Amino acid sequence: MKRILLTIQYDGTNFCGWQAQPGQRSVQKEIENQLEKIFEQKVELFASGRTDAGVHAKNQFAHFDYDGKFEITHICNALASYLPEDISVTCAKEVLPNFHARFCVKQKIYRYICYVSEFKDVFLNKFALQIKKMPNVQKIRQSAKYFIGTHDFSAFCASGSNILDHVRTIYNIKILENCNQIIFEFSGNGFLYNMVRIIVGTLLDVGCGKIQVEKIPEIIESKQRHNAGKTVQAHGLCLYDVVY
Amino acid sequence: MKRILLTIQYDGTNFCGWQAQPGQRSVQKEIENQLEKIFEQKVELFASGRTDAGVHAKNQFAHFDYDGKFEITHICNALASYLPEDISVTCAKEVLPNFHARFCVKQKIYRYICYVSEFKDVFLNKFALQIKKMPNVQKIRQSAKYFIGTHDFSAFCASGSNILDHVRTIYNIKILENCNQIIFEFSGNGFLYNMVRIIVGTLLDVGCGKIQVEKIPEIIESKQRHNAGKTVQAHGLCLYDVVY
Repeated sequence: MKRILLTIQYDGTNFCGWQAQPGQRSVQKEIENQLEKIFEQKVELFASGRTDAGVHAKNQFAHFDYDGKFEITHICNALASYLPEDISVTCAKEVLPNFHARFCVKQKIYRYICYVSEFKDVFLNKFALQIKKMPNVQKIRQSAKYFIGTHDFSAFCASGSNILDHVRTIYNIKILENCNQIIFEFSGNGFLYNMVRIIVGTLLDVGCGKIQVEKIPEIIESKQRHNAGKTVQAHGLCLYDVVY
Repeated sequence: MKRILLTIQYDGTNFCGWQAQPGQRSVQKEIENQLEKIFEQKVELFASGRTDAGVHAKNQFAHFDYDGKFEITHICNALASYLPEDISVTCAKEVLPNFHARFCVKQKIYRYICYVSEFKDVFLNKFALQIKKMPNVQKIRQSAKYFIGTHDFSAFCASGSNILDHVRTIYNIKILENCNQIIFEFSGNGFLYNMVRIIVGTLLDVGCGKIQVEKIPEIIESKQRHNAGKTVQAHGLCLYDVVY
């Protein structure tokens, strides 16, 4: 038995998310279907974590086990030929049998992209949130610092999550500017349901003056979802990388 | 009567091209339909030129006339609300009645984007041609110089064109490198049918050693289509700008 780790890229626009769900198009099921055709047996993929409907991935990771009959290059080429336009497997490598794509995660990196434009940009609009006015990026950077570290992020977790422990560690938040784009890059040991999208919504509220920079520590400490900003749309979010 | 010039952006993937064609989805018809709803009368758009099926535009220009009843900002906002996801009107301004979006063109700028990757990149694949091996960019730059200037470009014109004069002037060709992308930027007074795509195909043949740099002047002088490289796919091409 061999364990293979895949690096997977997807445009999340037309998926219900990573996870297989009955009657819906998921990234997991699309890849499993192709692997099952190659191996002529049932295959189960274990990802680093789920991504929600509409969220993209530049480097998602998932492992599976198989009997070792085929060469890895064969698997990779077969997937390249048969996967749909919006999924690409960019790497496949053998890992130790005790490696687990979810439980061995050390760090996850997410990017949220906004673009500032009065009018929709057809080339950016699937992968970035349009904002009409330039926010105050300096204030966004000042506020972002308060989120770094280990906190109870209950104020930044969507209801509907059944996870009880809301303590997470954010290692870093970078705010990158590129032409008319503002890129929020988060690295952390894990993120709660909608956490990145709520933090970005809150930071954008700071950037347009709705929330004062100094209020951020209070909002975090309150642990109350209603004190934070709104959840920004899924299509600006991308699972950028996973560190093992 | 007022004449309005629109700046238009489109993702060409799902269009038969700029020009209206019976039973097919064209950029021209999509915008005309919306303008006709706004003005409640027939509207005809005149573009800087056609673009083929699958070709994108970052800045296409087209003018139309109307009775002046509505403010320009109203037209722009109405178009922003009603145009489909893959078209955006980014600017509308009044021009003189003798201005013509096609006949007043001084320069057109096209970009062709390639990306070098063994595996498909789902984020680039709609707007850039995948090439698996890095070509020799220095040789491509050397060859590109031969195309600059006024030439009979018959060797770089697809059959099926009914234009008899094949003399065009290329002002400049820039070869830009950005991460794993190679961007070919052409500026000229006009381009023949498939001309940019055939020149890029020829330059890529030079880059991978199929054609010698020194052969380029001979190929141009031969005026024979079969001496040039293949026509690269439409989806890497973008009408980048038009100078009036």
